[in-house]
Amino acid sequence: MNKTGIPTYRKRLGEAVRKRRLSLKLSQEKLSERIDCHRNYVGSVERGEQNVTIDVLMRFAKALGCTVGELAREGRF
Amino acid sequence: MNKTGIPTYRKRLGEAVRKRRLSLKLSQEKLSERIDCHRNYVGSVERGEQNVTIDVLMRFAKALGCTVGELAREGRF
Repeated sequence: MNKTGIPTYRKRLGEAVRKRRLSLKLSQEKLSERIDCHRNYVGSVERGEQNVTIDVLMRFAKALGCTVGELAREGRF
Repeated sequence: MNKTGIPTYRKRLGEAVRKRRLSLKLSQEKLSERIDCHRNYVGSVERGEQNVTIDVLMRFAKALGCTVGELAREGRF
């Protein structure tokens, strides 16, 4: 936990998602289309605001061409 | 997805949790105490029935002395 009330691991997951998205040159909108969710939701996940489920994590990982394990490793959690 | 309607990755997450729990010689009840949840919930997660959140995954990982990344790697997802 930090000053924002958001657990550190969620922040780092969000950073890992953002980093992969940018390396694929995808906008939040494009990623949201791949995942079939609202664009705002992608932003919210990237800020660590969402307590995402394993099913949603899988959709993010697939859309980003990686595994949940890789996202977790990159987010160091 | 498989015949049970449970996604394969959830099944494998559950197996990874179960394997780690048994290697620590913990009962489902003991693990549930560490995680502060109902014993039945642990069994349900081990069967892949739960769409667990990242916060819950973190609690499982901590209680099992590993990271979420390790659980995901062991579950191959």
